[in-house]
Amino acid sequence: MKRIGVLTSGGDAPGMNAAIRSTVRYSLSRGVEIMGIFRGYTGLINEEMKLFNHRSVSNIINRGGTILKTARCPEFMAKEGRQRAADVIKKNKIDGLVLIGGNGTYQGGIELVKEHKIPCIGVPGTIDNDINGTDSTIGSDTAVNTALEAIDKIRDTATSMERIFVVEVMGRDSGFIAMQVGIGGGVEDVLVPERKFDIDAMCHDMVEGNIRGKISWIIVVAEGAAKAEDIAKKITDMTSLETRVVVLGHVQRGGSPTARDRILGAALGAAAVDLLIKGEHSKAVGVISNELNVVDLETAVKPRPTKINQLYELMKVLT
Amino acid sequence: MKRIGVLTSGGDAPGMNAAIRSTVRYSLSRGVEIMGIFRGYTGLINEEMKLFNHRSVSNIINRGGTILKTARCPEFMAKEGRQRAADVIKKNKIDGLVLIGGNGTYQGGIELVKEHKIPCIGVPGTIDNDINGTDSTIGSDTAVNTALEAIDKIRDTATSMERIFVVEVMGRDSGFIAMQVGIGGGVEDVLVPERKFDIDAMCHDMVEGNIRGKISWIIVVAEGAAKAEDIAKKITDMTSLETRVVVLGHVQRGGSPTARDRILGAALGAAAVDLLIKGEHSKAVGVISNELNVVDLETAVKPRPTKINQLYELMKVLT
Amino acid sequence: MKRIGVLTSGGDAPGMNAAIRSTVRYSLSRGVEIMGIFRGYTGLINEEMKLFNHRSVSNIINRGGTILKTARCPEFMAKEGRQRAADVIKKNKIDGLVLIGGNGTYQGGIELVKEHKIPCIGVPGTIDNDINGTDSTIGSDTAVNTALEAIDKIRDTATSMERIFVVEVMGRDSGFIAMQVGIGGGVEDVLVPERKFDIDAMCHDMVEGNIRGKISWIIVVAEGAAKAEDIAKKITDMTSLETRVVVLGHVQRGGSPTARDRILGAALGAAAVDLLIKGEHSKAVGVISNELNVVDLETAVKPRPTKINQLYELMKVLT
Amino acid sequence: MKRIGVLTSGGDAPGMNAAIRSTVRYSLSRGVEIMGIFRGYTGLINEEMKLFNHRSVSNIINRGGTILKTARCPEFMAKEGRQRAADVIKKNKIDGLVLIGGNGTYQGGIELVKEHKIPCIGVPGTIDNDINGTDSTIGSDTAVNTALEAIDKIRDTATSMERIFVVEVMGRDSGFIAMQVGIGGGVEDVLVPERKFDIDAMCHDMVEGNIRGKISWIIVVAEGAAKAEDIAKKITDMTSLETRVVVLGHVQRGGSPTARDRILGAALGAAAVDLLIKGEHSKAVGVISNELNVVDLETAVKPRPTKINQLYELMKVLT
Repeated sequence: MKRIGVLTSGGDAPGMNAAIRSTVRYSLSRGVEIMGIFRGYTGLINEEMKLFNHRSVSNIINRGGTILKTARCPEFMAKEGRQRAADVIKKNKIDGLVLIGGNGTYQGGIELVKEHKIPCIGVPGTIDNDINGTDSTIGSDTAVNTALEAIDKIRDTATSMERIFVVEVMGRDSGFIAMQVGIGGGVEDVLVPERKFDIDAMCHDMVEGNIRGKISWIIVVAEGAAKAEDIAKKITDMTSLETRVVVLGHVQRGGSPTARDRILGAALGAAAVDLLIKGEHSKAVGVISNELNVVDLETAVKPRPTKINQLYELMKVLT
Repeated sequence: MKRIGVLTSGGDAPGMNAAIRSTVRYSLSRGVEIMGIFRGYTGLINEEMKLFNHRSVSNIINRGGTILKTARCPEFMAKEGRQRAADVIKKNKIDGLVLIGGNGTYQGGIELVKEHKIPCIGVPGTIDNDINGTDSTIGSDTAVNTALEAIDKIRDTATSMERIFVVEVMGRDSGFIAMQVGIGGGVEDVLVPERKFDIDAMCHDMVEGNIRGKISWIIVVAEGAAKAEDIAKKITDMTSLETRVVVLGHVQRGGSPTARDRILGAALGAAAVDLLIKGEHSKAVGVISNELNVVDLETAVKPRPTKINQLYELMKVLT
Repeated sequence: MKRIGVLTSGGDAPGMNAAIRSTVRYSLSRGVEIMGIFRGYTGLINEEMKLFNHRSVSNIINRGGTILKTARCPEFMAKEGRQRAADVIKKNKIDGLVLIGGNGTYQGGIELVKEHKIPCIGVPGTIDNDINGTDSTIGSDTAVNTALEAIDKIRDTATSMERIFVVEVMGRDSGFIAMQVGIGGGVEDVLVPERKFDIDAMCHDMVEGNIRGKISWIIVVAEGAAKAEDIAKKITDMTSLETRVVVLGHVQRGGSPTARDRILGAALGAAAVDLLIKGEHSKAVGVISNELNVVDLETAVKPRPTKINQLYELMKVLT
Repeated sequence: MKRIGVLTSGGDAPGMNAAIRSTVRYSLSRGVEIMGIFRGYTGLINEEMKLFNHRSVSNIINRGGTILKTARCPEFMAKEGRQRAADVIKKNKIDGLVLIGGNGTYQGGIELVKEHKIPCIGVPGTIDNDINGTDSTIGSDTAVNTALEAIDKIRDTATSMERIFVVEVMGRDSGFIAMQVGIGGGVEDVLVPERKFDIDAMCHDMVEGNIRGKISWIIVVAEGAAKAEDIAKKITDMTSLETRVVVLGHVQRGGSPTARDRILGAALGAAAVDLLIKGEHSKAVGVISNELNVVDLETAVKPRPTKINQLYELMKVLT
């Protein structure tokens, strides 16, 4: 292992820079050269890369986004695309890759290992926290806190104006962010993709609550469960109560990473390099109960069991 | 002046609680009773009020929203509504009112003075900063900072993913927030209600910029100028570039107030009480260059001259 | 189990309110009365308590500190003090206690169980993260993030003024906060109570770094390892370089809790009540890898193994 | 005016980067070259400088500190030092200087104009807000908000633990920050250099308050008024009440600037360049009531009248 390449792919996540910094500096500390590859698999195919040194990653640990930039890469889905990537890898004498990203990123790594025997180690960087083999993914803690701060602010107006707010948070297939901010924000209800939801029952509760004098509600909706706009309309149709909609959107991806996401990035970037040096390939790193945990990439991308129902029950009891 | 009433009306704004606290405690310090009126003019009409003491406003200076709650009150627009309000005021022996809110709130005060000779002093509480006679209104500084933090976060993703973001901020008739975050966020362009905008020219710049390698843009749109969704669509139609939309929405109203909004609230609540005690009526308080400034309510609600064009030019030069 | 008492004891920690809210509402949902006991063991001895209802804990989930207040209680260290507490518990028909706090709080519970057969369940609320049986304690995540934000700010000046800063963080026996912010803040060195430190070597590095042009350093010191003031003086004595000292102090205890601390509080308050209802006593609740974990109070207070050396090595490699 | 130099000097202040960005880009937009001078007057004397382009100041508007770095420069106090600076200025064909800093920085500019006829325009960059001719200085709004957030956090613990906290904030000759956070934080008392303080009376109030049940106090001390440590000791000596001390320190200088400080920096950097182009020298720029204001450097450095007593009275009434 003389030269490692590192890339970030998929949606950006806060803490990716901490993982890049760790990958770069840990490699150098072990005498291994480190190539920064820009724009994910797109940049790999297009040979957008340069050798990094210690200072290449100065002053980035507290920055959101990723200095390596990121992109979605449809070309890489096809065999030809991956062939071109493998050619670039060989041409640039890269002996192994550290892939920072989510499921799509890992899937790309699985194919590269299979088809081209290129050692790949995955580092979980996604706000969705939907990767197996780790208690949390880099970026998810920051995203949850960002969404929660927004909910806290909305609560001020919901209470002052006595309104029903429907707040849409990120999560196409995952109700993770929604459920976390639901409990953390003490909201009245949460809609997630993993769970059937009885909107009639909720509207019934609202009308009853309204009679008792409870007239401020916050409903959190994961984008994969429904459009906030649609839910708000249904509520108004069924209850005649006024509603307001907030779609938090891309704000959730950015911002200076929390301590947790930085430390996770620091630990996992180094761990990924360690595995490559030890001759591993097709593995993903994670942290379980504050200890490093390594699984196969194939395992990491399998659907992650969630405890959504249990958390939902807790939230409802506490509201 | 034996008893003063205080209410908050219109949209809530961070710092209203600081103004309430100041109104209450300053009144009491001057030996004047103070009645907290809930839900703005609605509560006034419905006699929702109670005498406040020193502790009624403990631990609220750092809270967003308003403990007096607020509401829009269509009834108060009609003479009968105001008659009922005047009756309630007399019945409760309220000798004067402190009205915390924006233009609509002030307009209500003007009518109350005219029709019923009830002394009213306006305290500017609105995130739009569109009241005459004050350098800034309570809540506007917090709203701008909240929107700016969101822009900073969006910049992380805009840069990492190399995307065009169209961000909609509050401001139905006022481009104040949009222009402030435009300059403060170093964004590429700003659309405000006060200024014609050449979208073709902007799209042309984008295409040219794209060729030179500039592929991350943030465009801020005041809600009164256009829908972010529409602008994004036009950009994509005209440039074929991908866009993302973020509507910041009600998040901008909430949150712990900034120092400036708290201090403004503290100064102006007390000043309003002072004017009532001195026998003034139909005035609005404000701060000009760190000094108290008093104008007629009629003056306060007149269209406020803005320097939007000047600020816009500055922003464009610095981008 | 007809009536449960809940108290917070020791230093306050962000998220304690979330735990109180959960304890209260979960109890009520299970048909168990809940008594809020003020000022920890002091209030227990002095019978400062009242029955809580659902609304007693409204709007507190996002607040720092503890609405139950807290106190250190030397009286409770003595048998007579605990006898009085037991009498009060019996008099008030409290069938079991939820004790939110750290090691000292748990120790009190152990004695109460032993001497008076009062069922006690501990909920880990302390910023030090030094309790066994849980990945983290309520408050530690917020404290680390607060300290980290301060370090980020200090970095701005350290870089601009090219100075050496010695920053003292909380942690009398525990280097947890220091080590976390050390890694998360990308600082140059960390002194913790658990690890011997070679200040001569550090000063030697500083002088060498200074020659190479590295003139801005941040050194983090846990209060239990040394006084920042003393370390700064030693550095100046040994290197002739100017230093600045910052002692973060009590700022680290306060602030709106992070998502993690709120969710932990929510989960563990309910879990503690569950255990009491099931007839358990002398247990402590925690979360291991996102799953509830229950240990004996005696186990919870045993010295917790840390991975300080491993984390220190990582930090040094990445600086 | 073909080439302008820009430097930051004295203590760093958040928003200096926004002012640098504005100075640089506005110069370039007017066809004037712009030289970035590093480390303030020290770098000027040592010829540490380079020509800046548009991209030299990308992505800095939201960063604390100053990319030009800053230093205190005793050499520049002497005539010989200024002679060397003037020689460097001529050698590098710099036709005028933009000086971003506080009183000391301005004083240096005054001498340069007098002795060497070098046009100098001052931009007020200091957290102390003690410059004449401007409602506020760049950095002061951020510093006040940073200190206020800390006070809010300390309040959590002060209330929970029922303690007296003495909090020391920055301000050697100026009680500006102390007074602002005193009012904004709703604290119990404030000690500033501009005002005599009766500590006996305060202790008397504390003892009385304590009897009535008021046992949590926050006292803010400007560093120029007293050492927090000494005040705490006196309180304990006189009242036998326990106290805690927090010295906020350099945290107050850093952090991402508020909207206000960024916009002020943007406006004033451009304005300074404008004045140089118009042939002005020895002027300072500022903003009064949202309008540009220009005064002589000599006027800018004169003692600024404060309304400390008036603000102090307001604070005491509202507590």
